[in-house]
Amino acid sequence: MAEKNIMLVVAYEGTRYCGWQKQPDSPGIQGELEYACTQAFNKKNINITGSGRTDAGVHALGQVANFTVDTTIPVDKIPEVLNNRLPKDIAVLRAQEVKSEFHARHSAHKKTYRYQIYPSRIRSPFLKDFAYQVKYDLDLDRMKEEIIHLLGQHDFKGFMSSGSDIKSTVRTIYRADIYKRGDLIVIEVEGNGFLYNMVRIIAGTMVDIGRGKITESLRDIIGSGVRARAGHTAPPQGLFLVGVDYPEDLKNI
Amino acid sequence: MAEKNIMLVVAYEGTRYCGWQKQPDSPGIQGELEYACTQAFNKKNINITGSGRTDAGVHALGQVANFTVDTTIPVDKIPEVLNNRLPKDIAVLRAQEVKSEFHARHSAHKKTYRYQIYPSRIRSPFLKDFAYQVKYDLDLDRMKEEIIHLLGQHDFKGFMSSGSDIKSTVRTIYRADIYKRGDLIVIEVEGNGFLYNMVRIIAGTMVDIGRGKITESLRDIIGSGVRARAGHTAPPQGLFLVGVDYPEDLKNI
Repeated sequence: MAEKNIMLVVAYEGTRYCGWQKQPDSPGIQGELEYACTQAFNKKNINITGSGRTDAGVHALGQVANFTVDTTIPVDKIPEVLNNRLPKDIAVLRAQEVKSEFHARHSAHKKTYRYQIYPSRIRSPFLKDFAYQVKYDLDLDRMKEEIIHLLGQHDFKGFMSSGSDIKSTVRTIYRADIYKRGDLIVIEVEGNGFLYNMVRIIAGTMVDIGRGKITESLRDIIGSGVRARAGHTAPPQGLFLVGVDYPEDLKNI
Repeated sequence: MAEKNIMLVVAYEGTRYCGWQKQPDSPGIQGELEYACTQAFNKKNINITGSGRTDAGVHALGQVANFTVDTTIPVDKIPEVLNNRLPKDIAVLRAQEVKSEFHARHSAHKKTYRYQIYPSRIRSPFLKDFAYQVKYDLDLDRMKEEIIHLLGQHDFKGFMSSGSDIKSTVRTIYRADIYKRGDLIVIEVEGNGFLYNMVRIIAGTMVDIGRGKITESLRDIIGSGVRARAGHTAPPQGLFLVGVDYPEDLKNI
């Protein structure tokens, strides 16, 4: 039987997990998916590649992953077959056969992230795992004025935590929005890629700008390339990987 | 010092709890609040009265409770003082001194509940504890036509689970709406009171009507007073106690 390259779109609540990646003492989201796949397809070993890692506590609405398998299970049955074997905080939303060249990480050409801020002095039992509670008053107009400086191609080396080994710290941001939705302030960013902790540092910087702790313009902070001039790293539970985009020709077999 | 009668507005995620009420092996929400109060006010014993019980897994956006205490802590500091001592899935949103006659259960003259239905074949990691996933197609127009029969004063004895000891099963419903919001179908009901499991049986009946399992009109089902003619009891995690209303003169001291 020929091996098929299968793309999965996966949603998960990251609260209970050490993150996407396996750790010595914890399977991670990736490990849970791999275990469900070995069971579902009756294989000894299946290796799943994600579009990128997410940290402990970070959520995904549309993480993308791929793996190869020879199976007679119809592709449109794969979500159900895997969901029956996965914990309830992980859900395979969609499965699709893709070209053999498709690679969830290398082929990705756009990612979208959302960061949820809960500006309130009183905590919310429903948002504790899904937003960053900020007890200061935030000046949303000021945050809106500044966030547009993310747009375009920049060297974001000041917006990266150590711990990743990468060649270039230049990234292009296609969209950067901040808006109020219900009780939340929501940041949405789309780019061709993001450095380690980049969205959480953007969110922390926006909070520091909104509360007046940072008065320097975001343009100058980015230009400086100095981590210490950007804001704090906002906590993981506010962050959602919304989706990952790929060239259509790699997805159509 | 004179005893003050304190009203609390409380939000909680019910997932981890046996419900509002204490059980032999679990404190319940009420027990957690009482424990936080004994600590905060340095008392041996504080008895908290809720507007009513909520079952295991049921949530509250605005449960109301009251207790009496002699304390020098200013009333507007009470939410913070209690929240510092409460688990993170319970939050005191507001505290207010009320007349001595105010009783969270007896004085309540209106309650509002919300029930969230998630009509989808694929489960959601984010809604698993906050909505009832229904894998059938639901006819929202038909549900809208039928839900209005709840309005007004009716004997709802067919919409009650056994286990409560009450004199009258007549209740008045002031508002009954069903609408789509995002991925959810939301039911909202306001009434002068609700029987045990009444909202969950209303929700289950609406689902059974929406999927065509029940073809009888809701008017006739209510009129019959027969539990078996109503639908199933929808699960607890979709249910939210939104708020409880009281006569203004009891709240103003």
